[in-house]
Amino acid sequence: MTIPSNFLTATETIKLVSQGDLTVEQIALDHIKRYDERQTTIGAWVYMDRERVLSEARRLDSIPKEKRGPLHGTVLAVKDMMNTQDMPTQHGSPIYKDSHPGVDAACVAICRAAGALIFGKTHTTEFACSSIGPKGCGNPYDITRTPGGSSSGSGAAVRDFQCSLAFGTQTGGSTIRPASFNGIFGIKPTWGAISTWGLKPYAPTLDTVGLFARSIEDLKLFLSIFDIPSNIPNSISILQKKPLSNCKFAYIKTDQWVKPSFELSKTWEKSSILLKESGAEIIELKLPKEFEGISGGLAWIINKSEGKVSFQNEFQNQNQLLSSFIHNEIYDNSEEISKKKITEAYDKVASLRPIIDEIASQYDAIITPSVESEAPLGLGWTGSPKFCAMWTSLHVPCVHIPGFAGDNGMPIGLTLVGPRYDEQRLLSVAEVVAQVWARADEDKLNKIPVPDGVRHLTV
Amino acid sequence: MTIPSNFLTATETIKLVSQGDLTVEQIALDHIKRYDERQTTIGAWVYMDRERVLSEARRLDSIPKEKRGPLHGTVLAVKDMMNTQDMPTQHGSPIYKDSHPGVDAACVAICRAAGALIFGKTHTTEFACSSIGPKGCGNPYDITRTPGGSSSGSGAAVRDFQCSLAFGTQTGGSTIRPASFNGIFGIKPTWGAISTWGLKPYAPTLDTVGLFARSIEDLKLFLSIFDIPSNIPNSISILQKKPLSNCKFAYIKTDQWVKPSFELSKTWEKSSILLKESGAEIIELKLPKEFEGISGGLAWIINKSEGKVSFQNEFQNQNQLLSSFIHNEIYDNSEEISKKKITEAYDKVASLRPIIDEIASQYDAIITPSVESEAPLGLGWTGSPKFCAMWTSLHVPCVHIPGFAGDNGMPIGLTLVGPRYDEQRLLSVAEVVAQVWARADEDKLNKIPVPDGVRHLTV
Repeated sequence: MTIPSNFLTATETIKLVSQGDLTVEQIALDHIKRYDERQTTIGAWVYMDRERVLSEARRLDSIPKEKRGPLHGTVLAVKDMMNTQDMPTQHGSPIYKDSHPGVDAACVAICRAAGALIFGKTHTTEFACSSIGPKGCGNPYDITRTPGGSSSGSGAAVRDFQCSLAFGTQTGGSTIRPASFNGIFGIKPTWGAISTWGLKPYAPTLDTVGLFARSIEDLKLFLSIFDIPSNIPNSISILQKKPLSNCKFAYIKTDQWVKPSFELSKTWEKSSILLKESGAEIIELKLPKEFEGISGGLAWIINKSEGKVSFQNEFQNQNQLLSSFIHNEIYDNSEEISKKKITEAYDKVASLRPIIDEIASQYDAIITPSVESEAPLGLGWTGSPKFCAMWTSLHVPCVHIPGFAGDNGMPIGLTLVGPRYDEQRLLSVAEVVAQVWARADEDKLNKIPVPDGVRHLTV
Repeated sequence: MTIPSNFLTATETIKLVSQGDLTVEQIALDHIKRYDERQTTIGAWVYMDRERVLSEARRLDSIPKEKRGPLHGTVLAVKDMMNTQDMPTQHGSPIYKDSHPGVDAACVAICRAAGALIFGKTHTTEFACSSIGPKGCGNPYDITRTPGGSSSGSGAAVRDFQCSLAFGTQTGGSTIRPASFNGIFGIKPTWGAISTWGLKPYAPTLDTVGLFARSIEDLKLFLSIFDIPSNIPNSISILQKKPLSNCKFAYIKTDQWVKPSFELSKTWEKSSILLKESGAEIIELKLPKEFEGISGGLAWIINKSEGKVSFQNEFQNQNQLLSSFIHNEIYDNSEEISKKKITEAYDKVASLRPIIDEIASQYDAIITPSVESEAPLGLGWTGSPKFCAMWTSLHVPCVHIPGFAGDNGMPIGLTLVGPRYDEQRLLSVAEVVAQVWARADEDKLNKIPVPDGVRHLTV
């Protein structure tokens, strides 16, 4: 029996379509079948219209071969923070119930033109800000646990083989966290490298479009669609895969490493042993003192002050439809943020960006925790972004690599960090790292119902 | 004869409405009459639907007094870079012809809820990026001259008494320049202080919502609608108008002051004499050397690299509908911008922000040129942003104060600059400065057809 196309990677799908061995309509049907089997259980999607999907698929099939784009036939999930011309965009908020913005967000338009089949809109927490909910969206490895947030549905949909690529966003840790909780690959590129036009902002100097996939090869393809500056002096040598035996990694725990969970400690140790066994050089590095107090401190000041600007209209005019989370976290006046605090936060974080670039460029990658632990129980709280928030505010690219498991059979992974605009090189490093990590604890993970022969991750 | 309401300021209009002496419907009719008389000549508007305006006006009249907002009855023009739920949003580009985004931009929604009568959409150059055109929009003081760009229509509409308040945007000098060319007040607030959600971005780290009015009192009211951090330690003393005799100003020419025009030199000198005569202290200040090369250098690198990201979709997919301006200025590969250049530009400009804050806070305001000269002849080129670009990239608030005239009877003014988030205080300073500048050359300005008794500017 052939494996249905929803269990393939984007790269594999594109190849089959280009060879004439698969139609986009068949791809759509395979994905609709998976949706029908799984939506009630996983609840990744907040909107999916099968007639629209089939009609888009047929439109894609009708495009002559020479006019097809690089994503032709891949199935893409769009986080419901992003405008879509042919679907509602509700931002996880009753204020935008059934809202139809009518024009695709820039990143959506680019993928649509590149031939992606946009399957539907995935669950987000309220305005990608709240860490509550979203209701009814569970982790494919254990539906009583959160898939992480705010890009909850996108993480779950990719993990559950309901799409091959998905958009998330990250302001604190909303791409890296769900990537870890769902055991998939994720990248938060350099801030500003992908247009955020058509996304509802939370903290514009932090908000970043994130990408999910089940293989680094797919992430590379997905990222290549965007116009990221790439004229790296020695780009040819970089694009050749560097063997791990020539790689040097800086393991950085950061100031957030206080009472680490058992799963994190174990992952930290095992990941390092695996790299060393492959010949890589590992250095345990402590960041300079000035990097302390960003996560939960300066980054939070920026979140809060920019959030107040971003949600001003809703706060003033539809207050009763905002959650208590937004009220308490953003509008709580007991911790008023002065202009002095904001400018100091901006300037301090900005001054650290060239320093982290300099540090990161001395290694093939910085390796750092993605999350505190495996996905917590319950669908009420999406987990803490504390290990991600500093890197997000430093604007550096972060790639999550899965492969490890906690005692509850839930996935956990680690983050690779590089200097700003170095995501293409970082993904090449991630590819070789993934080869030794991605199957490290495969047999310990909870099972997801898939046909025989389906690969959990493709490396 | 009573002066029709379109010739009043926003503040005057609000008072009459609140006293029951004027209905919003009458205000709408007055403005429609002015539109009918002037649109063919000035061409400020790219969209105005009188039935929609009248229906909105009646809706506003039907709101009970106790539920009315602070802008109730003011007529607002919206630059066609900003989404509006009930009008097309075309971004000055054929790509977005008749595009209906369906959801108000944040700043539009906030004003609509505050009771503003949104009259229509005003002309912008292509994506508020191009300095060509827009076609058919002339300067009310001389229709053979540009009203400036990219906020061309907004500047012209406020000047021509076709609305009392207007939104612009500024990435280089697109609010301050049209304010100068049209002889009105304008403010570019601190970057990030007003949400840009629902605006099409050009260079997101520079793009700022700008405001226009014919009085500083109106600008104060307009700005007060937005949730800008204002907990200034000594806010009470600041809100009391400080007499000019207690004020100290730094006159800064910047590195762009090379071969200044006759009008600029004359304005520079006269403005300073007027302030001195009022007892103010004037210091001619030269910025530290590190501030050289931002305008046209670092700021341009940021414009270009961010523009490439912002316009990627249009460039890849609707290339033939982009102007040669966007092609040449943003996509010209002869000047490829490396990631090193971008990060250096970001980090350098960021490092100067606390320094300019420190310098600016030693004075009641920095005074600096707004433009090279009066509005140039022709509607092809909207003028140079060279005197504004540095301040925009430093994120500091800028207020344009008009009042002077060139030999062609065209207005020219100067900019007041303060530290970030200091716009409320800066507007109080602007108010006293405007009192000695705003009528300095009133008799030398070309005439605009208005009834007797109408004030050009209200101070």
